[in-house]
Amino acid sequence: MAWQLSQQELHQRQSRIRDELGRRGLAGLCLFSPTHVYYLTGFSFIQTERPIGLAFPRNGRSLLFVPRLEEEHAHEHARVDAVEAYAEYPGRVHPMQRFAEICRDAGLGAGGVGVDSDGYGGGFGYQGPKLSELLRDATITPSRPMIEELMMIKSPQEIAFIRESAKWGNLAHTLLQQYTRPGLNETEVSARASIDATQAMIRTLGPAYRPLSWTRSGAHAGYRGQIGKDSAIPHSLTTNAVFSAGDVLVTGAGASIGGYGSELERTMIIGKPDDRQKRYFELMLGAQDTAFAAIRPGARCCDVDQAVMRYFDSHDLMTHWRHHTGHALGMGIHEAPFFDVGDPTPIRPGMVFSIEPGIYIPGYAGFRHSDTVVVTDDGIEFLTYYPRALQDLTIPA
Amino acid sequence: MAWQLSQQELHQRQSRIRDELGRRGLAGLCLFSPTHVYYLTGFSFIQTERPIGLAFPRNGRSLLFVPRLEEEHAHEHARVDAVEAYAEYPGRVHPMQRFAEICRDAGLGAGGVGVDSDGYGGGFGYQGPKLSELLRDATITPSRPMIEELMMIKSPQEIAFIRESAKWGNLAHTLLQQYTRPGLNETEVSARASIDATQAMIRTLGPAYRPLSWTRSGAHAGYRGQIGKDSAIPHSLTTNAVFSAGDVLVTGAGASIGGYGSELERTMIIGKPDDRQKRYFELMLGAQDTAFAAIRPGARCCDVDQAVMRYFDSHDLMTHWRHHTGHALGMGIHEAPFFDVGDPTPIRPGMVFSIEPGIYIPGYAGFRHSDTVVVTDDGIEFLTYYPRALQDLTIPA
Repeated sequence: MAWQLSQQELHQRQSRIRDELGRRGLAGLCLFSPTHVYYLTGFSFIQTERPIGLAFPRNGRSLLFVPRLEEEHAHEHARVDAVEAYAEYPGRVHPMQRFAEICRDAGLGAGGVGVDSDGYGGGFGYQGPKLSELLRDATITPSRPMIEELMMIKSPQEIAFIRESAKWGNLAHTLLQQYTRPGLNETEVSARASIDATQAMIRTLGPAYRPLSWTRSGAHAGYRGQIGKDSAIPHSLTTNAVFSAGDVLVTGAGASIGGYGSELERTMIIGKPDDRQKRYFELMLGAQDTAFAAIRPGARCCDVDQAVMRYFDSHDLMTHWRHHTGHALGMGIHEAPFFDVGDPTPIRPGMVFSIEPGIYIPGYAGFRHSDTVVVTDDGIEFLTYYPRALQDLTIPA
Repeated sequence: MAWQLSQQELHQRQSRIRDELGRRGLAGLCLFSPTHVYYLTGFSFIQTERPIGLAFPRNGRSLLFVPRLEEEHAHEHARVDAVEAYAEYPGRVHPMQRFAEICRDAGLGAGGVGVDSDGYGGGFGYQGPKLSELLRDATITPSRPMIEELMMIKSPQEIAFIRESAKWGNLAHTLLQQYTRPGLNETEVSARASIDATQAMIRTLGPAYRPLSWTRSGAHAGYRGQIGKDSAIPHSLTTNAVFSAGDVLVTGAGASIGGYGSELERTMIIGKPDDRQKRYFELMLGAQDTAFAAIRPGARCCDVDQAVMRYFDSHDLMTHWRHHTGHALGMGIHEAPFFDVGDPTPIRPGMVFSIEPGIYIPGYAGFRHSDTVVVTDDGIEFLTYYPRALQDLTIPA
């Protein structure tokens, strides 16, 4: 298997976008987000101060506009009709001036033009005009939701990538659990588990494997600071903590495959769990089971979160609630829709979600598993498959 | 030394911002970028679909608005007058509705209000209104350049962080060079060098060390795919390439200290360099030397790039030119200003830059060193100090 988006996959995406543009009466799209450019063209790149823009007319030739340093790279990887390079940013002429001309030449100078942002918004010290200031005769139309709607339903190839990601995340997590011992430092244990899993993965998949993500590479598993009482901070940052007997730990693991990821998180305990730890652990499992049972095509995303909220409420856990039940994922580590009381999006087959209700007791500990599932015709299929039970997640003290 | 921003440092930043707001007649600021929030408050966090916003009136109490899952975390780390949490995104009420009320209460409902973006622009599936749609009586004023201007001049503490980063980047690069051998895989060698340098670093710095960046942690060195003929792709992505005798390699190394980084890159060659390799290597050194000599307070950023362009031109290298000479850096891997023909920003003491003109011959090889320097009263001081000469960068075949 080639771990890269197939030409057929990219062709289908572009066709679907053209159909959608037709339905909305838009002349075309201008995209600036690296995620969206990769989604439509297969070109993955390092974002910098230098804008990269895709001009994608509904009828006509697509053009990817890149800085000179990406020209050969884009020619090799981007599935577009043409690539044009500008010298540099800021350069003698602001590159967006030329991009506006390209848009006009592509028929995007007038009519409705969908954008993911009104001009390049890349940060890294970039400054520049809005696209709407440059294309005054066009009706610049925010279209991020349209693109994200298409991205919500994963194709068989995307699901295969996420499934493969979960497999190597499972290995990384297995090693993480095996390497974790009192007295060791989280940073060292996380790094060792990640490198060993990555070595096994690249040797197994062979030269066809490329991560195609510049922020994630290979397999990884780690703690990110959720150790001991800091496990109660849902989004802690690493503190280079040292493990001790009695610690509750919250993990995270995954792998980058063709630009896609998966999410596996587990609560583990060092040494024999005490009754209080056991109680919260089992309550957390119950919350996750509640979510699993609520996911099916035809239900809405909010229904799943509401079911979990009712569970929290009936078990007197609302003071320990900190966040919604889960989120879609794929190329993004978080994507829409969300298992959130405020998200009425209907659940459909092919959507891929994390399911991760957590229980957090400040100053004491936090408890959260996260699993990645794909919605099927009649429920869910698990893509992650790491043991969930406390007896399997207890580390010798 | 505590590897975290001091209270005094944060106080000074907030004072300078207030002064700047006064000069511009702005009532205050609303900031959404994690970098800017960290810069002003010392609170580092993982960006998600959930907006985080800082309401920072020129006169009055600052307030950091966070999702419930960050409330304890923000209370512990953010230097602000108050923290307020909302339940979730999207939630039953869109969090930006409440943030707009907070802004009004803070006196930001009218007059000029500086913003780094007109509403939260976080990605991760987020959708929401612009701030200008919610604060209709305020004059929303794009103020990213004002903030970035303040960030350009590094304080003694910031320079100390970047200097420390360069030190551990130097170790990681030393190990990278030592571990690189024909037949090994770039991913394994990069990971081993990074983990070994990180272990030495955290053992040396002790528990006071925290990376305070969620995208970078510890020390790192690696190749990112610039190996053999792919060294000619300036922003290649890793291909898990295997090293061979005769390969030209382009590296990258650094470390995360208090949220700050440095940039060290070297061209190395496996086996005895041939005449063509030697020639381009020496030309690359000459280009970098040209830049070093051109940097001094009072000159403009474009002067440095122009000097390098003249060097390229006089050595008949323009067909091998791909990008400008360098960029500022600190919290960001790239920041403004840029050593670019189009950037007239005056060079001032306390600015920190990468200097990295590169020579790229498609299908053959690329040649680039990058060093990090701080501008002094009469020139530059090197923060990176890895050997630059070919004899020191040749790896046994």
